[in-house]
Amino acid sequence: MIYGITMGDSSGVGPELVLQAARAGAITRPFVVYGDAAVLRRANEQLGYGLAVEAVATPTASRPGVVKVIDHGIVGVGDIRPGEISERSGLAARMYVESATRAALAGEIAAMVTLPINKEATRLSSPDFTGHTELIAEMCGVPDVTIMLVSPKLIVTHVSTHCSLREAIERTRRARVLRIIELTCDAVARLRRNPRVAVAGLNPHAGEHGSFGREEIDEIEPAVADAKAKGLPVEGPLPPDTVFFMAVTRGRFDAVVCMYHDQGHIPSKLLDFEGGVNMALGLPILRTSVDHGTAFDIAWKGVASTTSLIAAFDLAVGLIEGPAPS
Amino acid sequence: MIYGITMGDSSGVGPELVLQAARAGAITRPFVVYGDAAVLRRANEQLGYGLAVEAVATPTASRPGVVKVIDHGIVGVGDIRPGEISERSGLAARMYVESATRAALAGEIAAMVTLPINKEATRLSSPDFTGHTELIAEMCGVPDVTIMLVSPKLIVTHVSTHCSLREAIERTRRARVLRIIELTCDAVARLRRNPRVAVAGLNPHAGEHGSFGREEIDEIEPAVADAKAKGLPVEGPLPPDTVFFMAVTRGRFDAVVCMYHDQGHIPSKLLDFEGGVNMALGLPILRTSVDHGTAFDIAWKGVASTTSLIAAFDLAVGLIEGPAPS
Repeated sequence: MIYGITMGDSSGVGPELVLQAARAGAITRPFVVYGDAAVLRRANEQLGYGLAVEAVATPTASRPGVVKVIDHGIVGVGDIRPGEISERSGLAARMYVESATRAALAGEIAAMVTLPINKEATRLSSPDFTGHTELIAEMCGVPDVTIMLVSPKLIVTHVSTHCSLREAIERTRRARVLRIIELTCDAVARLRRNPRVAVAGLNPHAGEHGSFGREEIDEIEPAVADAKAKGLPVEGPLPPDTVFFMAVTRGRFDAVVCMYHDQGHIPSKLLDFEGGVNMALGLPILRTSVDHGTAFDIAWKGVASTTSLIAAFDLAVGLIEGPAPS
Repeated sequence: MIYGITMGDSSGVGPELVLQAARAGAITRPFVVYGDAAVLRRANEQLGYGLAVEAVATPTASRPGVVKVIDHGIVGVGDIRPGEISERSGLAARMYVESATRAALAGEIAAMVTLPINKEATRLSSPDFTGHTELIAEMCGVPDVTIMLVSPKLIVTHVSTHCSLREAIERTRRARVLRIIELTCDAVARLRRNPRVAVAGLNPHAGEHGSFGREEIDEIEPAVADAKAKGLPVEGPLPPDTVFFMAVTRGRFDAVVCMYHDQGHIPSKLLDFEGGVNMALGLPILRTSVDHGTAFDIAWKGVASTTSLIAAFDLAVGLIEGPAPS
């Protein structure tokens, strides 16, 4: 089994991160990069990493000192613009993702781990581009995915993510909540033995018996009851302002199903801003992602941290290989 | 100047906490308790604290070994029910708060620090009772207060608190946001030198230029502009999922103005579940409160932590005396 890593936007920190991680021997399973060999070679030289970069046509495992790359030949040496938005680089970044997605769908790679795209750069050639996750979901023919954030301290999933808070309330519906509970329990069971999953309420104090909104009574409680009836290890709805403390500090839960983007993102990013991993649930393929952006301000300087990339890679491995025997 | 501490519901942890803190010498300014002498005496005996409890009619400073209490004579020895909801205890708890509020309004005490009430118990005699803060606000003739949560790591205030998330969106209005920014800047300036205040957005990514909701554009940005025009040290609206990291980990802000209850409560309670302090902004008197409940499950056992009480007391002192000279 070989894992694919997409290089991300060549103006950002993606190229140097995969090289750094490879050089440090921190990537613990066979991998191949989806990217541009010219970019990786230039970054390798500039930062003095002393690696060899070898272009390959089909997924082939890198080995110590040699990074193998499925070479797209889009960004040449003369096109490299560290820290700058570039149409070519944005287009290429999308192509790497498309190639890796096709390879994952065809079973050529076990999973894909993605480095950051710059949305603005990619929109210069694809004006309708909304995001990494949406592109992959569309290629997989899946209309409905959700984001799971994973850090050593906390796992969260979301009933809704990239929409207004007003729209997030509308999306808090029994069937959708149940679906996210199921996806969460399934993913967490691959990572932890005997997982316990909490479901957060939508409103303050989880509505305080209907005093502060009825979504808990009308939608979330029924969804939790449905999930329990299916035998899922779930509890809730719990007050949003205490459920994370109970999960993180008291260790009572492995994951929290959140009702909206910031409910899960605020505690996750506060706890682990640099080491977070992001993954889409509901896809037929396995894809994990670093939880940071292209970081143009520090790109090509060799100072970006590989923590999130390594965590994203290890998460993919964990999901494939299952929890370690206890 | 003397500070008032209300004893809270006698079935809960309030009585033992004030005694414990007094015994430890952790209350660093003159204080008097608003409560029932019979309850404090019984708790003192049961827990073997070895203090004297002296009933007084007007605010009189306690001294080492002697706790002075404005004795309401409502809960007698035979009425004490540790860990149980009691109509008499709930009524008494409300009376202590009313007395202390009147004393603060009359200038007899510098500030009031409140120990927890049990809402259910108080409702047995006052069915319309909605909460501590609301009662005090009503007695002060102030319709519009907001909650500030203070911990060593983070200060947050809220544009709305105890209402549904749907209603919180409706309350995100320019005038209200500006008012809370002003109250926040005023309070923080009493605690920190050269304070910097962040304003969080309402929607994910602070709306991403209107893609995920327009409240940032229509309401919050204008409010921040108004505040800046008044010379206030404020920045925003910032993405809710990064602003707390910037404040706490990077130290870029002293306080964050939040748009709804859980936006501020989730990070605060995650960071500092036991040592948090709660205070109402917008009152003509100074009132701080512990940020925990009556904790009936551990009441009268001598195991509850005084951390939050001491922090609440110190916050009141800080607000009165101003930031320490640098």
